[in-house]
Amino acid sequence: MIRILRLMTVIILTGSPVAQAEHPLDPLSWQEHWQILEVLQKNSRLDFTTQISQIRLIEPEKAKVWAWEPGQKLARGAFVVLRHAGNAHEIDIDLSKGTITRDAVIEARNVSWSSNEFFIGMEAALSHPAFIEGLAKRGFDDPTFLNCFTIPPGYFGTEEEQGLRIGHLRCQSAKGVRNPWPRQIEGLTAVIDMNQGTVIKVVDEFDGGLHNTTADYDLESVAPLRDMPPPLMVRQGASPGYLHVGHQVWWQKWSFHARVDQREGLVISTVRYGDDEARPVLYQGYLSEIFVPYMDPGFAWHARNFIDSGEFIGLGLYQPLLPGKDCPSEATYQDALNTDASGRPRVIANVLCIFERDSGDPAWRHFEANISDSRPSRDLIVRVAAVIGNYDYLIDWVFQQNGSIVVRLGATGIVESKMSGAANAAEQSKKRPADAYGHFVDQHIVGVNHSHYFNFRLDLDVDGQENTFSKDRLVTQSLDGNRRKSVWVQSQEVLEREQSAMLNKNYSMPALWRVLSNTRKNHVGYPTSYQLRPGATAETLLLPEDYPRMRAGFIDHHLWVTPYNARERYAAGEYPTLSEPGQGLPQWTSANRNIDRTDLVLWYTMGMHHLVRAEDWPVMPILWHEFELRPFDFFDRNPALDIPPER
Amino acid sequence: MIRILRLMTVIILTGSPVAQAEHPLDPLSWQEHWQILEVLQKNSRLDFTTQISQIRLIEPEKAKVWAWEPGQKLARGAFVVLRHAGNAHEIDIDLSKGTITRDAVIEARNVSWSSNEFFIGMEAALSHPAFIEGLAKRGFDDPTFLNCFTIPPGYFGTEEEQGLRIGHLRCQSAKGVRNPWPRQIEGLTAVIDMNQGTVIKVVDEFDGGLHNTTADYDLESVAPLRDMPPPLMVRQGASPGYLHVGHQVWWQKWSFHARVDQREGLVISTVRYGDDEARPVLYQGYLSEIFVPYMDPGFAWHARNFIDSGEFIGLGLYQPLLPGKDCPSEATYQDALNTDASGRPRVIANVLCIFERDSGDPAWRHFEANISDSRPSRDLIVRVAAVIGNYDYLIDWVFQQNGSIVVRLGATGIVESKMSGAANAAEQSKKRPADAYGHFVDQHIVGVNHSHYFNFRLDLDVDGQENTFSKDRLVTQSLDGNRRKSVWVQSQEVLEREQSAMLNKNYSMPALWRVLSNTRKNHVGYPTSYQLRPGATAETLLLPEDYPRMRAGFIDHHLWVTPYNARERYAAGEYPTLSEPGQGLPQWTSANRNIDRTDLVLWYTMGMHHLVRAEDWPVMPILWHEFELRPFDFFDRNPALDIPPER
Repeated sequence: MIRILRLMTVIILTGSPVAQAEHPLDPLSWQEHWQILEVLQKNSRLDFTTQISQIRLIEPEKAKVWAWEPGQKLARGAFVVLRHAGNAHEIDIDLSKGTITRDAVIEARNVSWSSNEFFIGMEAALSHPAFIEGLAKRGFDDPTFLNCFTIPPGYFGTEEEQGLRIGHLRCQSAKGVRNPWPRQIEGLTAVIDMNQGTVIKVVDEFDGGLHNTTADYDLESVAPLRDMPPPLMVRQGASPGYLHVGHQVWWQKWSFHARVDQREGLVISTVRYGDDEARPVLYQGYLSEIFVPYMDPGFAWHARNFIDSGEFIGLGLYQPLLPGKDCPSEATYQDALNTDASGRPRVIANVLCIFERDSGDPAWRHFEANISDSRPSRDLIVRVAAVIGNYDYLIDWVFQQNGSIVVRLGATGIVESKMSGAANAAEQSKKRPADAYGHFVDQHIVGVNHSHYFNFRLDLDVDGQENTFSKDRLVTQSLDGNRRKSVWVQSQEVLEREQSAMLNKNYSMPALWRVLSNTRKNHVGYPTSYQLRPGATAETLLLPEDYPRMRAGFIDHHLWVTPYNARERYAAGEYPTLSEPGQGLPQWTSANRNIDRTDLVLWYTMGMHHLVRAEDWPVMPILWHEFELRPFDFFDRNPALDIPPER
Repeated sequence: MIRILRLMTVIILTGSPVAQAEHPLDPLSWQEHWQILEVLQKNSRLDFTTQISQIRLIEPEKAKVWAWEPGQKLARGAFVVLRHAGNAHEIDIDLSKGTITRDAVIEARNVSWSSNEFFIGMEAALSHPAFIEGLAKRGFDDPTFLNCFTIPPGYFGTEEEQGLRIGHLRCQSAKGVRNPWPRQIEGLTAVIDMNQGTVIKVVDEFDGGLHNTTADYDLESVAPLRDMPPPLMVRQGASPGYLHVGHQVWWQKWSFHARVDQREGLVISTVRYGDDEARPVLYQGYLSEIFVPYMDPGFAWHARNFIDSGEFIGLGLYQPLLPGKDCPSEATYQDALNTDASGRPRVIANVLCIFERDSGDPAWRHFEANISDSRPSRDLIVRVAAVIGNYDYLIDWVFQQNGSIVVRLGATGIVESKMSGAANAAEQSKKRPADAYGHFVDQHIVGVNHSHYFNFRLDLDVDGQENTFSKDRLVTQSLDGNRRKSVWVQSQEVLEREQSAMLNKNYSMPALWRVLSNTRKNHVGYPTSYQLRPGATAETLLLPEDYPRMRAGFIDHHLWVTPYNARERYAAGEYPTLSEPGQGLPQWTSANRNIDRTDLVLWYTMGMHHLVRAEDWPVMPILWHEFELRPFDFFDRNPALDIPPER
């Protein structure tokens, strides 16, 4: 509260909340985006054939950002990846000086898919005899109402792929339906040379034509709706309980910076806790990568192993929230910018929402005959939505009054499905069941088995940048000469090297994962710390030699710990498009660097295997997974003790 | 909605909602409680020395309850356990006839602790020389301000215990403090013969006296409070979105019966889903047992291995909720009855609350350029609070619009602590650290390591009583001659015998646990089913030969599946007080009964290991764990599709 008052005083004195709200981690502004394009143009790096695959802020040095005070200006920079057919460059721009400070050639094959590449190869495929024949076999003599998309098929180490930027093109029939996703023209794939826009080959796995099951879910298609329930309205006072100025947020005893980037989505930075003393907890956290491998060996499916965040930056992963639906009515919203292949900025409205939630749960309680107490709790939620074609993910950062931060990911949207010749489970061939690699969700429609992995990069700075990672195993201790034969005890291991800190959650070998401060102890002599407490997750079932697993090697472990390096930002590497095995975490940690008494980054993966139910069709009820950053001896007592007793 | 209208019509026509609200599973009424006492008295089973350890409703046959229609009367019965010193009986009473229908002698040693037994042995201990000396050593020459309690120490197979009902008595100093729990007079235990009220022996493990660290957390002690945040009020219309008549609840498309019993707490019964056709999902679900073993081998601690629900029925486990704090302001509350050792009924006010929650999350959403949709969701929560001395547990049954039921358990209250001679982690002996079996939370106070296990008895009846249990493993399939080397596939195993269905959640061998209907299939030919989806849980770390583990054998597995048997109600058996090993699930399943195509009961255990943090002191922030009963092909599509689009 003291900090908020201080800020408000500054605002009142200077008369400009906007100026005071500037923060060195603020996203690239509209003006900065155009400045980037002008600098590129002036330096002959840009023409109308240039494909820009990403633009992002180069953040100032971490120590400077922690030390930043309102009003102070730090250097601004931008990182740009651009491509001219087979040539690609990484370019650093100093925005303060308007100059290019670095220009490095990179492998063009691996830059992310540009927004226009989804349509490359369509003309070639639709005029290719084998593709035309495949369409005809399935009942399409006229491609007028088809949607065709070319997507990156990953990498399998084959001869065919060497040196090429390859895409796989498939079509769906949009005729008459609102929801074309299930109208897959199944088993017909054109392999495209993306630089030439030509068809390398057509693979046809015919299993029957298109069936007319619809999966529309609009109001008309679903009618009648259930009755509108009696109102249940959340009403807040004249102002919400949080202060949101620019990209900075103050709520209860928390303060942090929140921006939405094109690749990372919601980036939460400089998280501090405390009124009188704002203690650092987390320098930065965001969803670093999404990996979704499908589990059907057919040619049309074997290559659907999406490393979404890295491959589809150009798709514009973060899309508007629908006010009053995706967030409650009283939420506040913020826009953000993204860029298409031309590099021009576009406004994405309502991309972030913030709201307080009274869940109806107490923060704590104890009932005793003569002294019962309980304190109502509320949370602050910051939310964005990623949309990757058919799938939608809500990402929530939930700040709690008890010092915890819960990060939640809700999967919803439309499951990827396969059109099957067999109608359903009863009518399919017993010998070659159509649901061998999925599950029927409607007539002729099989939801295909798949998994999701979400890696969060968590740059914790617990009471400062010098931290240590502790794995506190709970181990059985046998007891001799005691009535009890055993107890469990804490066995603390400080992990000193990266390769000792590749960890999996395992119920038979429980352990606490903690980041300890090296410079501060609590009132009873323990180092202050934050614990990463996993929720439900999953382990990969792919064989170690399977390419998709090797390309997204971060899924080998639920947790990795690395020393801080500003250039290591994405779990599957900077360029996971058509990438070769071993990028990102496996590569960085191969050096087995020191992680003791240094600045640490945690990489946590939340996984889920999805065997699709009928209930997941045609739109999937949201399924939440979460993990918690939990104070452990960071405070001297329950920090929620001082919550007022009334709602 | 149709069912609600039908019920409301009945109410209007008969003019008596109360009469219509009678249900065969309604709790024993005030009048029935007194009738029970009168029948016992008339039949010479009761005098003023009788200790009544439990009274509960004998439910009518399950098939009759499912078939019950409003207005119909089914027989009412009561089950009573009473004790006269060394003799104990189980008595069945027919309340319709006012007769005793069964009277069986049982082992008196194992009936649950009566409310007055907590004080047996106090006089003897406080006049025992060794105990007096122990108190004096710790600075207590006068026991006036001590609270002493005798609690059941379990069973360790020693000579000393044979044939006796034993208690362990310890004291705390209540002088001047609001919260006496941490004022443990540490390491001084009197072993009591409960039938004689005498001291068998005194065990003194002196480690220093009482220290004056306080752990009061009332408003005055905690002041100053943080500022009251701006209001965030939930306002509902003239009526809530649910109908609660008697003990029956209708909400959205759900209907169920909810009562609060003395041992089970919240009992949710006859859960059905559907408007036009109310389809059975769950016959009954409740928390069947709580087990909390501590992890300190000292004499004063080795025997703290509480099988709470069974041992402490007489304590009155379920206590009032604090309106507007433990539940939101707009919640509705219901009272219940419990009984003390005299068998007389007492009203426990506000023991249950019901409320709707708008979490601000969508039920589902999909964003597409031209067709974006999202639907606001709300849940119905039914909540009770168990209070077991120092610890508080909230138990929530959360009904969702998507057909799922989430059961949550929130642990809060006061952690059990040990008074230590050493002041803190910095000042303790390095050779014999005071925190070897716990963690300092304040000066001289060590929160002792412990685990919690909560077993839920879930009598699912998915589209009828004839069900089958399916374990759907996700297994790696190697691929030959494919670019992909592997996929995972579903491998369904119908488990036919109890011993094949003792299951543990294991991330490296994932499986879905489902209860399938044998009589109904969905529109694509799969059996309808509900899945039990675990959240975070824990496995025991105790050695198999350790008595506490053997006495609460249900913790050996996260899930057990048994054929329905009305007498098998509690995971650690009917009488876990001072019980010998193997009671409950291990005993029942030793017959390895058939579980295929029959009426099934699932027993799921949610576990947590608690290494206490400073933040858990002096009252612990609530820590939630949960599991989900999730429709899997129960519906033909997402049942939340028809939610209206506005809040």
